[in-house]
Amino acid sequence: MESIDREPGRRPTIRPDERVTMSHGGGGRATAELIRRIFAPHFANPLLEQGHDVARLERPEGRIVVSTDGHVISPLFFPGGDIGSLAVHGTLNDVAMGGARPIALTAGFVIEEGFALADLERIAASMGAAARRAGVPIATGDTKVVERGKGDGVFITTTGIGVVPDGVEIGPDRLAAGQAVLLSGTLGDHGVAILSQRQGLEFGTTIRSDSAALHRMVADMVAAAPGLALLRDPTRGGLSATLNELVEGTRLGIAIDEAAIPVRGEVASACELLGLDPLHIANEGKLVCICDARDAEPLLAVMRRHPEGREAVRIGSVTAEQPGFVRMTTAIGGTRIVDWLSGEQLPRIC
Amino acid sequence: MESIDREPGRRPTIRPDERVTMSHGGGGRATAELIRRIFAPHFANPLLEQGHDVARLERPEGRIVVSTDGHVISPLFFPGGDIGSLAVHGTLNDVAMGGARPIALTAGFVIEEGFALADLERIAASMGAAARRAGVPIATGDTKVVERGKGDGVFITTTGIGVVPDGVEIGPDRLAAGQAVLLSGTLGDHGVAILSQRQGLEFGTTIRSDSAALHRMVADMVAAAPGLALLRDPTRGGLSATLNELVEGTRLGIAIDEAAIPVRGEVASACELLGLDPLHIANEGKLVCICDARDAEPLLAVMRRHPEGREAVRIGSVTAEQPGFVRMTTAIGGTRIVDWLSGEQLPRIC
Repeated sequence: MESIDREPGRRPTIRPDERVTMSHGGGGRATAELIRRIFAPHFANPLLEQGHDVARLERPEGRIVVSTDGHVISPLFFPGGDIGSLAVHGTLNDVAMGGARPIALTAGFVIEEGFALADLERIAASMGAAARRAGVPIATGDTKVVERGKGDGVFITTTGIGVVPDGVEIGPDRLAAGQAVLLSGTLGDHGVAILSQRQGLEFGTTIRSDSAALHRMVADMVAAAPGLALLRDPTRGGLSATLNELVEGTRLGIAIDEAAIPVRGEVASACELLGLDPLHIANEGKLVCICDARDAEPLLAVMRRHPEGREAVRIGSVTAEQPGFVRMTTAIGGTRIVDWLSGEQLPRIC
Repeated sequence: MESIDREPGRRPTIRPDERVTMSHGGGGRATAELIRRIFAPHFANPLLEQGHDVARLERPEGRIVVSTDGHVISPLFFPGGDIGSLAVHGTLNDVAMGGARPIALTAGFVIEEGFALADLERIAASMGAAARRAGVPIATGDTKVVERGKGDGVFITTTGIGVVPDGVEIGPDRLAAGQAVLLSGTLGDHGVAILSQRQGLEFGTTIRSDSAALHRMVADMVAAAPGLALLRDPTRGGLSATLNELVEGTRLGIAIDEAAIPVRGEVASACELLGLDPLHIANEGKLVCICDARDAEPLLAVMRRHPEGREAVRIGSVTAEQPGFVRMTTAIGGTRIVDWLSGEQLPRIC
């Protein structure tokens, strides 16, 4: 958020009583004014300044990938981030999981009438700062307003465009028995942070979301092991949904080791208290990497050089046994099937 | 909509009492099931079937453009379309206005808990049909669910990716005095159709939205006159907002001729009754083209060969006089300034 203050001369003054009105979504002068006051100062970049509905990007050297993600998180502000930074990180990560270098983001806002303009500016500032830190411009956007009671503050749908370097072929069809399963860090931080905030729970220390952009770490991983098989970010549904999706209906299974999976002490305590399983909880700054076993240690070394991967570990292997299932050696030495939940534990977690 | 029936074997059966639940947005099995039953059959295309969060596109031959648009229209279904076809057409048109050939769409859904699954399928079918007719795949998507009373049925944010052929340089910086202003057809159809539907008004005949994809017509226009200066679709704010945006703060003005601007009789009657001005009303299947005066007739001939441009006409010129303003010679021979409304006449029109 410090970057709000980097351009003090351009910072517009928003009065605390100013609210979003239906006319801010009308596409006329009021919309232009909202963009000029709230979005333009924080998103400033040459693409956006083209001032079209459509933004022109660089001519890409490689294959183009695209990913889109709606963000409806509640509450909008939480320890470790807000809907704005989350929307940037989440979509950058989806693009990065395709092995791609993100080159641009778009942002579509659906805002509820009556939403405080100061809160919208806080979100825009956080989005702009996240995009600048990531080195990826918000190239174009859109603003709609719905009547009070027909939305919930603000929803943000971000789309990311990326370029996949030649030679990188990542995808679930690349999975094979014997490959290693790596995890970039602790599980459950995002989900537990949101739940604590939502329910006003205290666990001694404030649990912060792990919301972070992973594309720089991914770029180094892809450079170190261009043949890596698969990258996934365990968001909604957590690690269990991510791993189950990969093997369901295939002739492969995944075996993981509970003792190897890092979970912060306070997150584990919160999960125990609330009856939640960290394997099912959404993360917003973690990735799972599946690679040849011989690439595991070199990739872990690369990951650990990045703050987002400092606690990276190998948690298991792809197997030919028990195809279609994820099984886990538990901390006490037994084995259990890691289930894929049919619903969700935490609604509106992202 | 006829294309729903093109793949009868793949059509899932949705019971009339089935409703969207919070778990459909959880990212687990229920989300996967919703996608399998509702979206996959209607959006079917090789990109979507890659089954990633991220879709890989062709290697583009040209510069990439991107555009995004949220759709919050109310009501969801209206004469001439629904939110699904509108979301496809609207974003294809934004991409086309950059002079680009659209190559892929993404779709992010924010659905209200309790929304009828059958209505969601109707929307998915209409989106899928619109995308197939346009020849542009829905490459990837996202589904979120919010609690009852925190949304309004469904909001759809679509993003379009396009490729601009080399040699095409379209943009407001290309405007110059003496250029012609062309309009592809009648004004006001979309806005008046929505308003009539919303308010249960009858005007003798049903007024239908003009919602349509314009990219094929644009491709022919760009091929015929690669040097055309600018394309814009007069959506929210109508023709008046579109033209005012172009000249505001510049050293150019625009002069248009009211008698040349086509408005359907029933739309004109409705506007008169409701105290609306067709110049301010949103259109969803029209474009404004600004080009060298000598290209005007050849471009009109190209436009008139397409159903979307059958009523294309020249409505005015870019001028050096009265810079920053749009002025109109009225049907009775006077002159008036065409204002840019500060709010909007019709909320949630797109």
